[in-house]
Amino acid sequence: MTGDLIIDGDALREDIEQTAEFGGIKAPEGRGRTALPADEANQKARDYFVDRCKAAGLDITIDPVGNIVGRWTPASADPESAAVAAGSHLDSVPRGGIFDGPLGVFAALESVRAIQRSKISPQRPIEVVSFTGEEGTRFAEGVLGSTVAAGKASVDEMLSQTDGEITLEAALKNIGYYGSDRINANRWDSWLELHIEQTTRLEDAGVPLGVVTDITGTARCHVTLTGHPDHAGTTAMDERQDALTAASELVLAVESHAGDIASSGSETAVGTVGHLTPEPNTVNVVPGEVSLRIDLRSTKQSEITSQLEHVQAKLTEIEANRPISTTFTCDYDIPPTPLSDRCRATVKQASEDHQVNTIDVHSGAGHDTMQIADVTDAALLFVASENGYSHSPKEKAEWEDCTAATQILAASIAQLAK
Amino acid sequence: MTGDLIIDGDALREDIEQTAEFGGIKAPEGRGRTALPADEANQKARDYFVDRCKAAGLDITIDPVGNIVGRWTPASADPESAAVAAGSHLDSVPRGGIFDGPLGVFAALESVRAIQRSKISPQRPIEVVSFTGEEGTRFAEGVLGSTVAAGKASVDEMLSQTDGEITLEAALKNIGYYGSDRINANRWDSWLELHIEQTTRLEDAGVPLGVVTDITGTARCHVTLTGHPDHAGTTAMDERQDALTAASELVLAVESHAGDIASSGSETAVGTVGHLTPEPNTVNVVPGEVSLRIDLRSTKQSEITSQLEHVQAKLTEIEANRPISTTFTCDYDIPPTPLSDRCRATVKQASEDHQVNTIDVHSGAGHDTMQIADVTDAALLFVASENGYSHSPKEKAEWEDCTAATQILAASIAQLAK
Repeated sequence: MTGDLIIDGDALREDIEQTAEFGGIKAPEGRGRTALPADEANQKARDYFVDRCKAAGLDITIDPVGNIVGRWTPASADPESAAVAAGSHLDSVPRGGIFDGPLGVFAALESVRAIQRSKISPQRPIEVVSFTGEEGTRFAEGVLGSTVAAGKASVDEMLSQTDGEITLEAALKNIGYYGSDRINANRWDSWLELHIEQTTRLEDAGVPLGVVTDITGTARCHVTLTGHPDHAGTTAMDERQDALTAASELVLAVESHAGDIASSGSETAVGTVGHLTPEPNTVNVVPGEVSLRIDLRSTKQSEITSQLEHVQAKLTEIEANRPISTTFTCDYDIPPTPLSDRCRATVKQASEDHQVNTIDVHSGAGHDTMQIADVTDAALLFVASENGYSHSPKEKAEWEDCTAATQILAASIAQLAK
Repeated sequence: MTGDLIIDGDALREDIEQTAEFGGIKAPEGRGRTALPADEANQKARDYFVDRCKAAGLDITIDPVGNIVGRWTPASADPESAAVAAGSHLDSVPRGGIFDGPLGVFAALESVRAIQRSKISPQRPIEVVSFTGEEGTRFAEGVLGSTVAAGKASVDEMLSQTDGEITLEAALKNIGYYGSDRINANRWDSWLELHIEQTTRLEDAGVPLGVVTDITGTARCHVTLTGHPDHAGTTAMDERQDALTAASELVLAVESHAGDIASSGSETAVGTVGHLTPEPNTVNVVPGEVSLRIDLRSTKQSEITSQLEHVQAKLTEIEANRPISTTFTCDYDIPPTPLSDRCRATVKQASEDHQVNTIDVHSGAGHDTMQIADVTDAALLFVASENGYSHSPKEKAEWEDCTAATQILAASIAQLAK
């Protein structure tokens, strides 16, 4: 039934490369961009996306947190029926790659255009979606827009988030994307997101497309260790309250515990101290305070819980053995998300029909899909990444893989909208 | 012979408190200032010092690195004879205390004024000195001016140091302290520096004044550890090149080795990682690079060497056990400095004469005196510090202890200038 569904790989590439221009950076190692939520580059990317949706005859709705939907209601469809939605995000990390986000948004748009060009007669409306603030590099910790669309955070809570200078609300008003529509993922029949893989499992397996079985859960903690800043020369070793040596014990404990879980066969378990700031951070002063952030993940909740407990036990041990006080808060805790059997089966059938090889993978990264999957059936597709580079100008997917993956996305959307 | 040598404690206090106004900061916990080399606050402190020297009839000379000397040639003195010099520095660390530096400069000036008021007839000129850039918080690693005055670094080498924006030469020209005179510590008969102690040995012993036997040697190293920045969620534990976990091993190795030396009876040995910066320092990225600085000290050279060797051995071990490359440079290496028997004996005799109790201490901190002691006889005197706070607005000495210490400084200068 989807035999005449032809993806225009050049159009897809043009959309992604045009979006790469907004916030484009000099990067001899590849091609990169910086488009933080509601900054000027992000505004231009949004404007371009809206223009392209309108050119395809889609109706635009924008909600108060700046999520954008381009909706196509085919003549064959019941406008009241639940839509099939697909998309991703247009924001990036600082000096990010050009595929992470825009690929999913424009693959969804190209899917709609391909279905429009085909003889397929969808029974459901199709919505192409760009979520606000997926990366967590400004205003909130990440998956901002999809959290609101899934009804898991209030609009007001998110709008009051600041980047240290202005609120999300003010920033969205500045760029003209503070909308008054309501976007509710609850009402969608199903959701599909295509994303570049962020490791090398697909490349290693020699397949272009991965079908995600589970999205890892993620807990993030803030820890502070407080001792006393003393002169590095005049303070004897046994008089010190060194916050950095204490923090170093914690860093190694996080690594070794995650390593223990992973080496016992559960390779999705990871634990990272990515952020660590000593104060005053001067060569001749014993560090008096360290703040650090810990990121703990697994596709099994029990392994996240085990890691959290291990961190707390280590802090208790540090307080017992050193003249150091600690604080621990965990303000980001998203459980593992298994993805929908129905949607995955649809994607697998489409892959077979179109002779595109796939493997099952898990997602070690969070995605908007993990929020949407809580309220409707959802699937997440990965396209192979060269060397697995992510959040870097080195991030790269083959254009022909992008086209093949979009073919499967379009066929899956068409099937779900049947 | 020094029975009519009367210190004006109020004048000393006024000089120190006036200097504290320049770069004075809000600090509810005490009284602080920020006066970095050649900044506006430092300029004002220099101007004030020069004015006070002139008011006492001293002749001002300024050298190209901004060292300032106020020279008094008494009518009783041979102008060609080697001078007795005393002083310290007027720069501070960021948010430093008000005594560290200014106490030594203005105690030397008050000593001259007290000798002028007395019946003492010095046979030598007396010079009051403010050295540039002792703290190492801008342009160079520290003891900048005294290194030049001791002939251990060239003027040109120091003038070309930058703070990342401008050179020392340009900064000194901006504030009017790029002089053309020559200040040569080699020509001094002797040198005395009064400084606030930076730990609690004097307070613990209940004495106002310490006579320093040795200044600790200090080696400072830069270390970089380079792995690869990877996504914290998608990179399995056994695929990581985490520079921060590797760095944490090094931090703990520095602490444990210094602790081992110190606990074997040599309490002057200390080892500190005071500065550590991970890149990119973001919660969801495995740190790809860490740069850190290590400060290693002891009054015994062998213990500094042992610590340096231990750091290098640990780096070799890290490279063997982890996919991490490292670099190691040691660009600051000042050996331990024993102080002059002649000067120390003079100070001790003066303390006995004036019934001020003293103990022998070592200095765990570097001071301008360690450079000057290489080219002439030198002594370093400590005044007791309340709770040992240093490089902090909490730094505090009792004014009566400052006056008593200045009394001994003045009597020692008078004796050496006899």
